[in-house]
Amino acid sequence: MKIAVLGGDGYCGWATALYLSKKGHTVAIVDNFIRRQWDHELGAQTLTPIRPLSDRLRVWKDLTGRTIESFVGDVTDYEFLAATMKEFEPEAIVHFAEQRSAPYSMIDRKHAVGTQVNNVVGTLNVLFAIREINPNCHLVKLGTMGEYGTPNIDIEEGYIEIEHNGRKDVLPFPKQPGSFYHLSKVHDSHNMMFACKIWKQRATDLNQGVVYGTVTDETSIDEALINRFDYDEVFGTVLNRFCIQAAVGHPLTVYGKGGQTRGFLDIRDTVRCVEIACLQPANPGECRVFNQFTEQFSVLELAQMVQEGSKKLGLNAQIDHLPDPRVEAESHYYNAKHSKLVDLGLRPHLLSNSLLDSLVNIAVEYRDRVDHSLFLPQVNWRNSTNDRRRPVGAAAGATVS
Amino acid sequence: MKIAVLGGDGYCGWATALYLSKKGHTVAIVDNFIRRQWDHELGAQTLTPIRPLSDRLRVWKDLTGRTIESFVGDVTDYEFLAATMKEFEPEAIVHFAEQRSAPYSMIDRKHAVGTQVNNVVGTLNVLFAIREINPNCHLVKLGTMGEYGTPNIDIEEGYIEIEHNGRKDVLPFPKQPGSFYHLSKVHDSHNMMFACKIWKQRATDLNQGVVYGTVTDETSIDEALINRFDYDEVFGTVLNRFCIQAAVGHPLTVYGKGGQTRGFLDIRDTVRCVEIACLQPANPGECRVFNQFTEQFSVLELAQMVQEGSKKLGLNAQIDHLPDPRVEAESHYYNAKHSKLVDLGLRPHLLSNSLLDSLVNIAVEYRDRVDHSLFLPQVNWRNSTNDRRRPVGAAAGATVS
Repeated sequence: MKIAVLGGDGYCGWATALYLSKKGHTVAIVDNFIRRQWDHELGAQTLTPIRPLSDRLRVWKDLTGRTIESFVGDVTDYEFLAATMKEFEPEAIVHFAEQRSAPYSMIDRKHAVGTQVNNVVGTLNVLFAIREINPNCHLVKLGTMGEYGTPNIDIEEGYIEIEHNGRKDVLPFPKQPGSFYHLSKVHDSHNMMFACKIWKQRATDLNQGVVYGTVTDETSIDEALINRFDYDEVFGTVLNRFCIQAAVGHPLTVYGKGGQTRGFLDIRDTVRCVEIACLQPANPGECRVFNQFTEQFSVLELAQMVQEGSKKLGLNAQIDHLPDPRVEAESHYYNAKHSKLVDLGLRPHLLSNSLLDSLVNIAVEYRDRVDHSLFLPQVNWRNSTNDRRRPVGAAAGATVS
Repeated sequence: MKIAVLGGDGYCGWATALYLSKKGHTVAIVDNFIRRQWDHELGAQTLTPIRPLSDRLRVWKDLTGRTIESFVGDVTDYEFLAATMKEFEPEAIVHFAEQRSAPYSMIDRKHAVGTQVNNVVGTLNVLFAIREINPNCHLVKLGTMGEYGTPNIDIEEGYIEIEHNGRKDVLPFPKQPGSFYHLSKVHDSHNMMFACKIWKQRATDLNQGVVYGTVTDETSIDEALINRFDYDEVFGTVLNRFCIQAAVGHPLTVYGKGGQTRGFLDIRDTVRCVEIACLQPANPGECRVFNQFTEQFSVLELAQMVQEGSKKLGLNAQIDHLPDPRVEAESHYYNAKHSKLVDLGLRPHLLSNSLLDSLVNIAVEYRDRVDHSLFLPQVNWRNSTNDRRRPVGAAAGATVS
């Protein structure tokens, strides 16, 4: 089928675009490269040397014979988005084109406002473009498990039946997001449910857990297709960061007690979940929600697994408990349902020692590119302004233990 | 106390500013007059001839000796907002400065995006300004009962205890807002709860019902202090519109069956609720929610009351059932709690025949200003683009029955 991947130059987006292309779908990537610009703003670079999109797509074409079109522009620019939809005529839009880092959104007011405006306006534009150009197009939108927060009850997939004073209804699951970024996804979810109701649109909201891994079958074909592998405190996800810390002999940075429990998944499952959602679309008027993760772990459990696994590789990883820069429960009940994607055919890649080994080995391969000063949290939720500027060369030495 | 009223030149804001000033508080109005500009955009004017803010404040000073300061600017402009807070040093901020019309937000994409960006960015700016300039300042924010939608269970005040699979938690009440405007208020509510959590701010979210009436003790002192009385399909609230329709012999425009049930309150209670919230502020870290209405009615019940009441004034009001331009249940369960403000001292003005008489009489007084073409709905929720432009003079005749 014809699938547009918005944000297809990013971490999950790139892996997804290649996977869908390999599976025979006609894929277009829509991206404005702002994710690469944020790296420059933060003074951080992915561990792996990613190529420009034009190179990536040329190599993909050379090696596989498959063409992925690219449309360069910003989904918050409606005229661009509408023109793209008219030209490409997608049957499904996979929407990754959002600012996706919680710490980035918590830097200061401008980053909070920028994140919410970017994400909310982009998604509104997508909803209107579908309504105006092809109402039958299925929106597959990346949400986050972080929309739910950590309630003291089981987390359902999007909706919950509530019995109250002798009456019942099925209502949207209450949301308690933990950053201005997570809030933006909650805003999106409400906007999507409403658009499905009034315009009979089809939408799937993928409430994704924390993604780990970097290699997929497609990105590993050639080094020119290599995916991002972020390890900095702003865009690096926790398990990826731990593996890189272990590889370079930096203590694993656990925030607080480490009892924060979340849903996790391998990036190889991200790409499969997206295809499953595309191939079995929501009905007109339906805004369905899938909790897209495969296993729950606490942050400390992950640190201990990385510590244990890296021993075999001759590495001796320490665990540091830093004061938690976030405002969150450091130990809490957590039980989130995640059966709908499995029911539709997902066979999860569970977290394994071999996956951890491979991540640590990639990190060892590129260890010369690691800037140790990027590991430590510099964005504190309790501040309304966080200054991330560092004197050139000053911080790196200070953070190596 | 020192109270800043953001949006103090608008319908509820103006009445509130005068009431608080009369009660001895030191009041500042912060406004950018965009509400007056929307009237020009829509080709609609309030029934009552409102004066420029500078005139209003001069007359208020002349007649009462009380000064209300004004700060002219946009709360989405952070530098302006911060400078205003530093100069005025409010102990409470009453935040009415939002686009408040559901139909306006549903005109087209630009109005939807404009409403959400304006409202979300304005409220984020207020939250950051409080955090950065005076963390003890209490935010009294106008939300709406429309955030809840019409669930099939009783509506609580902001939060609900949910028992699920043998566990319990008190969680934000699930939201099912019915327009891009109502969605913007839901976004605000989530942002506020989060700011209270991470920064220990004090906030009260007033989920206000549909306001009716125009006269308060203060606005009636002099015609120069007269308040807005909107009757157009975009900014006119339903009961006010019915009274004006009855006064000029236009059928009362009920959408669909008229079984849509909502919470309503007299504008004289709006101003008292706001003062109650200011005088008994939320605790640090608390985001409390009050459902601010006094009675529930269905739209058809209101139409019948206006029809009945206007008979005594020699008017023979007809009721027209128009196709509902909104996507909403035309009959449904509705039972919303509203005891918290009463517990804090509110003595409601219940809807009475004398109030209806007074509204109809004001409408009769200004009947020459009524443009009949503004009564009929021109914004349909099912369309993503509604063209409200009319040929000059073309529509008025067509809509008088």
